[in-house]
Amino acid sequence: MTIRDAAGFGLDQARRLDAEDELASFRHRFVPIADPRVVAYLDGNSLGRPLRATAERLQEFVSREWASRLIRSWQERWLDLPEEIGDELGRVALGAAPGQVIVADSTSVCLYKVLRAAAALRPGRSRIVTDTSNFPTDRFIVHSVAAELGLTVAWIESDPWSGISVAEVATAVDDDTAAAVLSHVDYRSAAIADMAAINRIVHDRDGLVVWDLCHSVGAIPVELDAAETDFAVGCTYKFLNAGPGAPAFLYIPQRHQAGFHHPLTGWMGTADIFAMADRYAPAPGVRRALSGTPPILGMIGVEQGAALLAEAGITRVRAKGRALGRWVIQLADAWLTPLGHTIASPRADDQRGAHVTLRHPDAEQLSRTLIDNGVIVDFRYPDGIRIGLSPLTTSFAEVWHAMNRIHDLTERDRS
Amino acid sequence: MTIRDAAGFGLDQARRLDAEDELASFRHRFVPIADPRVVAYLDGNSLGRPLRATAERLQEFVSREWASRLIRSWQERWLDLPEEIGDELGRVALGAAPGQVIVADSTSVCLYKVLRAAAALRPGRSRIVTDTSNFPTDRFIVHSVAAELGLTVAWIESDPWSGISVAEVATAVDDDTAAAVLSHVDYRSAAIADMAAINRIVHDRDGLVVWDLCHSVGAIPVELDAAETDFAVGCTYKFLNAGPGAPAFLYIPQRHQAGFHHPLTGWMGTADIFAMADRYAPAPGVRRALSGTPPILGMIGVEQGAALLAEAGITRVRAKGRALGRWVIQLADAWLTPLGHTIASPRADDQRGAHVTLRHPDAEQLSRTLIDNGVIVDFRYPDGIRIGLSPLTTSFAEVWHAMNRIHDLTERDRS
Repeated sequence: MTIRDAAGFGLDQARRLDAEDELASFRHRFVPIADPRVVAYLDGNSLGRPLRATAERLQEFVSREWASRLIRSWQERWLDLPEEIGDELGRVALGAAPGQVIVADSTSVCLYKVLRAAAALRPGRSRIVTDTSNFPTDRFIVHSVAAELGLTVAWIESDPWSGISVAEVATAVDDDTAAAVLSHVDYRSAAIADMAAINRIVHDRDGLVVWDLCHSVGAIPVELDAAETDFAVGCTYKFLNAGPGAPAFLYIPQRHQAGFHHPLTGWMGTADIFAMADRYAPAPGVRRALSGTPPILGMIGVEQGAALLAEAGITRVRAKGRALGRWVIQLADAWLTPLGHTIASPRADDQRGAHVTLRHPDAEQLSRTLIDNGVIVDFRYPDGIRIGLSPLTTSFAEVWHAMNRIHDLTERDRS
Repeated sequence: MTIRDAAGFGLDQARRLDAEDELASFRHRFVPIADPRVVAYLDGNSLGRPLRATAERLQEFVSREWASRLIRSWQERWLDLPEEIGDELGRVALGAAPGQVIVADSTSVCLYKVLRAAAALRPGRSRIVTDTSNFPTDRFIVHSVAAELGLTVAWIESDPWSGISVAEVATAVDDDTAAAVLSHVDYRSAAIADMAAINRIVHDRDGLVVWDLCHSVGAIPVELDAAETDFAVGCTYKFLNAGPGAPAFLYIPQRHQAGFHHPLTGWMGTADIFAMADRYAPAPGVRRALSGTPPILGMIGVEQGAALLAEAGITRVRAKGRALGRWVIQLADAWLTPLGHTIASPRADDQRGAHVTLRHPDAEQLSRTLIDNGVIVDFRYPDGIRIGLSPLTTSFAEVWHAMNRIHDLTERDRS
């Protein structure tokens, strides 16, 4: 008997947790992984797995809506999809009342639009706040918008493993701050930022906050309306399982809609699309955030992902995400920290999103070895191994097998 | 025997043309229209029909690449797709050598990026030329970019039914012109602009030309390299049959790549995507035009559409497009002009793209009636009925039945 069979850490315990899991059956709603070498898929926070319903719906979509209703589908259904699916995301995942969320473009393009609009809402203010540990695309877009508008980026020099704190934001924001651009859940550590408290602090200075929800949407409850959030963007290909490069979404609360102006003034954002008007006149609501023809095929996965989340319920998803994270931390404490791994994610359940990151000096090589041996994790520069936990697809036994193999391969590579 | 059975205009003649059509068999490569009420689909220039191969590939894609290779597919294949499919579009449709075309975003977003980059390449110049009949999204984006950069829009007051002429551009362009934004094939009349001649005229003033290829790509040969085109954008959901809202493409010739800078600086446009660098460093080639995560699902249709075009050959597609247009014009002359229709598209084959537009005082109501009666055409404000001709799917008999019904319904509505 090895340490890995010790009471509370055996496969029997994993199976017990799976037996008690209310969401266990949801795993069967996904297309099976046909690759027999895959022991565990722990990268659903980079790319969620496809739903069986998405595969089926795609076929039906092609033969019925696209092939047979043809162009008529735009009027019958497609033109409304960005708002309809946006409303559903608002309801099941974002805590947003209808008419404030729309599906469009990529996260990067949505962020650009929102940040341009936010800056225009605070004319005369010269600073955009963000943090040095924010996801690259966020930092790059902030930098770009600041450069083109002649603004300054006020960088919060945050610890890349601790996420962004209320105190850090309080120090960085001043009366010259137009907007702060922050991630709700940190992509490296999974640390959760206190959205409501940070919004209040920035609002006290009359600034605006733009939240990137990529690592929180579909994994933890987000309460955009209740937190009085100004703007948010996020992707759908992680915990919403919508597919590689599926369209993103953006949130514009009612109070900011009339003043929301961005420069990508394509025809789909106009009040009357087919009027072929002389001048651009933005649609009255959140629709003005659209530019080009909506990516309908990519929205099928978003629709199905939102529907499955509605069925499971974000509260249960969150509870399982916490339990999975706790399970990873327990096993890591028992098996991996003796081998040089450290736990880089918050230990407190309510401060941690739906992944756990281990740090290890050989993380890059080890991640490759793990993937080659069927444990699909994600390396994050410089020394992080992200263990993504998708509550609708990840089982406790899957995690157990993965942690077991991480132990064995770490040990092997040390010898 | 009515006029519609007269020699040369009967269904037998349509069938003869179909029998002689080298591309006739390609029609069977598409998913059938399951709606028995559809007599003719003449709106492939708004939304092309789905290929059977696209439907099949979608299933294989979901079960194999997405469900089973999972996140590994990004490195194995997906990250290269925007350039790979771009190169193929360049080869089969655009006359562009490899490394200059990339699939991304929507036409509107691509146009914004390209126009910002073009303006930055001509600092100090204050005018952007476009025409009042250009497609709305083009005009809106031109207007927006001009407004944000403090430039002036020099409008060519073109006749909405005659397309843009070399002489009109020559008059509008001066030494203060940064860029001209023009459509290659006019969305109303299908008039073809003389790309090479217009490029030369604008280049003589050291200006740049941005071409919108939405209504030409996949329907008529485009020779971007040979015409020394500066920039081009276009959609894939018309004659390339890639699906509703499928991603667009943009063309940046080698000579402009190093100087191509746009403000939507997302991580996918960087030289080293996963370096998570402090600052944005654009990729060396056309890849710098990317922003967010590429829409992989939407690219499947683009890939299949390009493959089918490669098989058919753009020369044969063009020849059939001309013949279909000629057939529409012959039948319209015989049957429809006596009922108040006029032909608003160029009569000369080599000046007309792949649709023919009829004008009629009751066009809006008549278009609705036609669609309700299975002849799916497209109304274009104020009085145009667009008859779209997709050489890979449209048959001469289909056109014959449609023209017949247009005759009957026009006559009925007059009585």
